[in-house]
Amino acid sequence: MSLTDLRINQTKIYMKAVIAEIITIGDEILFGQIVDTNSAWMGTELTKIGIRVKQITSISDSAEHIIKALDDAKTRADIILITGGLGPTKDDLTKMVLTGYFKTKLKLHEPSLTDVTEIFKARGRELTELNRQQAFLPETCTPIRNVLGTAPGMWFEQDEKVFVSMPGVPFEMKRMMTATVLPQLKAYFKTPEIIHKVVQTVGIPESMLSDKLEAWEKSLPQHIKLAYLPHLGGVRLRLTGQGSDAAQLEQEMQAEVEKLLQIIPDYIFALGEISLEEAVGQLLKARGFTIATAESCTGGYLAHKITSISGSSDYYQGSIIAYHNEVKIRELNVKTETLQQHGAVSEATVKEMAENVRQKFNTDIGVATSGIAGPGGGTPAKPVGTIWIAYADKARTVAKLLNFNKDRLLNIEYTAMAVLNLVRQSLTSTVEE
Amino acid sequence: MSLTDLRINQTKIYMKAVIAEIITIGDEILFGQIVDTNSAWMGTELTKIGIRVKQITSISDSAEHIIKALDDAKTRADIILITGGLGPTKDDLTKMVLTGYFKTKLKLHEPSLTDVTEIFKARGRELTELNRQQAFLPETCTPIRNVLGTAPGMWFEQDEKVFVSMPGVPFEMKRMMTATVLPQLKAYFKTPEIIHKVVQTVGIPESMLSDKLEAWEKSLPQHIKLAYLPHLGGVRLRLTGQGSDAAQLEQEMQAEVEKLLQIIPDYIFALGEISLEEAVGQLLKARGFTIATAESCTGGYLAHKITSISGSSDYYQGSIIAYHNEVKIRELNVKTETLQQHGAVSEATVKEMAENVRQKFNTDIGVATSGIAGPGGGTPAKPVGTIWIAYADKARTVAKLLNFNKDRLLNIEYTAMAVLNLVRQSLTSTVEE
Repeated sequence: MSLTDLRINQTKIYMKAVIAEIITIGDEILFGQIVDTNSAWMGTELTKIGIRVKQITSISDSAEHIIKALDDAKTRADIILITGGLGPTKDDLTKMVLTGYFKTKLKLHEPSLTDVTEIFKARGRELTELNRQQAFLPETCTPIRNVLGTAPGMWFEQDEKVFVSMPGVPFEMKRMMTATVLPQLKAYFKTPEIIHKVVQTVGIPESMLSDKLEAWEKSLPQHIKLAYLPHLGGVRLRLTGQGSDAAQLEQEMQAEVEKLLQIIPDYIFALGEISLEEAVGQLLKARGFTIATAESCTGGYLAHKITSISGSSDYYQGSIIAYHNEVKIRELNVKTETLQQHGAVSEATVKEMAENVRQKFNTDIGVATSGIAGPGGGTPAKPVGTIWIAYADKARTVAKLLNFNKDRLLNIEYTAMAVLNLVRQSLTSTVEE
Repeated sequence: MSLTDLRINQTKIYMKAVIAEIITIGDEILFGQIVDTNSAWMGTELTKIGIRVKQITSISDSAEHIIKALDDAKTRADIILITGGLGPTKDDLTKMVLTGYFKTKLKLHEPSLTDVTEIFKARGRELTELNRQQAFLPETCTPIRNVLGTAPGMWFEQDEKVFVSMPGVPFEMKRMMTATVLPQLKAYFKTPEIIHKVVQTVGIPESMLSDKLEAWEKSLPQHIKLAYLPHLGGVRLRLTGQGSDAAQLEQEMQAEVEKLLQIIPDYIFALGEISLEEAVGQLLKARGFTIATAESCTGGYLAHKITSISGSSDYYQGSIIAYHNEVKIRELNVKTETLQQHGAVSEATVKEMAENVRQKFNTDIGVATSGIAGPGGGTPAKPVGTIWIAYADKARTVAKLLNFNKDRLLNIEYTAMAVLNLVRQSLTSTVEE
């Protein structure tokens, strides 16, 4: 057993695991009107900083039920995170219940009033009394700023346990967690040294990936664990290391990442938490290239992916969405003969689309999509999920046939990912030329 | 007090609401590796048959935790539905725990053995001992057939309460629920009549909405409840009614929906569970209109929203995404003077974009967006979130200035929603002209 392993084992002995529970409030989850994605996101983020989620409880908008849930959670967890029930309408009573639960009273919190007033001003609206009420907070809590909405969060401490109440609106909750709650929890509880390394792969299914990585995974030291996190259009590999010496752990893990880069160089598009569209954007910037898109079946989703990255205007010129053949002919100069001979969903058409949008927009690169997203429009020869994509630059034009067997939105999503990956592959191979 | 109220109150006396709780077992949900979509689906299906879900609890794969959860649930619910922890691997211990919990023992269940053997034969594989074990079930349970997987479900009855254990694999659980569990629960419990009505609003924040609806909400009979369900770009209003006479309840609730249509006609875009892009699509189809889009700041997202609806090719022609001014000039014929005098983010520019894309694509309607999505690109005069949108048809062109205070993706999302709403308003007002 290596020194490191020994140190880890010692560490484990004096290291008390910090336990969290998540309570979500609102009938819309219980009635199945919305899927609780908040808890999954919180579970991921808490796990990352070494906090273990022991239970997630979804309950109704009822005072006694909320109190019962708090009492139960308190017996099991060090941290109780509550989302939901903070809207201005009267069916949202979390704040009142917490005020009673912690035997305190509501008091106007000026900074929150300023925030909510600002938000209304920005929206060009008058502050309503209901929203003004949202600035009244329990006296004993530390308010958590909500820069994206009108309901502030609340941080309570009792018997060395932390209770945090946040809005159920996902983007408001996420911003609060990232900006305030997670850092403060890290500081408040002595969490172990945990380092994560994320290696992003694309273009290879999980099963093939795990075959390629089997030997390497077996060779990992026991304090470094590997997780496969498949998602739309790729598999994220997350290495999680735990130890007492951060610097050494960092070194060990970097070494493992280097090994990975040797084993599957073609499938890794980035290290760390960045998206494929972001990675492609960085490649384009680095090479000073511009790009334009011509979309049929993806209907603007590819353009959206590219422009979802701030700063994309440095390399993205624009797109022609040619949903109808007329538009392909009139706006993209696709030859009528091409459409007649090969059809809209064909290598010839998609290549013309990519080449012509490149010329039209005077960019270094042009990409195009044409296919049958479904559920309608399939034929025996070209069933739903038959999709052609193309990449064109000054040197060459390449096209690729995709066959997906998913529903409309997934076919669109997978196609956009495949195009971005085609751009990535072309750009990285260009370097070698 | 009206006759109805009396009848309901009498009803309430003999009508005991049936309460269900859902327990999901497995660390993958707690660690956020998967999102719990099972519970939302179960919540929807149970609500439909008048069973009220009071709590959803996600716990780890630990015997004591499972037992504690069962004991708690038993004190609150008539029905306890358990998913997960039934796989053949040793960390799946739900079956062992239930066997102990109900003080019974495992016994080979021949039909289940036949099923699992069949499944392996169909997959061309030999039945493993691990999988053979799955046919051993607690003696006192009624096995539930699993035609899609190797783990049978289990139905227990104790003190007039029902406990059901099912696999966590979504399609296996759904098949079991639909084929066996839901019908049997309906038969076992005398469930009340429950009706939901959803009214979809857009363009008005929750707080303003609740001000407008306050008087009406107060006037609702006590057996009809209102819930505000805000989501990106709109607020869903859900009326939930309970009674003994379905036909009469339906009538009462329809009457309340009619009142709503009188109070906030301009903000309601649909009744029932359909999206704004779907509602707008139906409007366009009904009027036989075609539409084209010209996008700057939304970068293709508006087109994506429209084309996410299958059948959108009936009314959607295409788009020009003019991310750069050059493209606005070259592809959308926006006048250079307009851009110089007013800038890209201006009423004049966005109106030209909408009018010109309409002409270029020869459609009935053209819409356009131009703004600063952020985080960069803001100025004191035009801060991030300053966005102009326009609608043009043969009769007129209207533009609208939006001010959002969100991050890039939300500004884009809200803008697309605002454009769709502008189309909806224009189309519905057109009728009156």
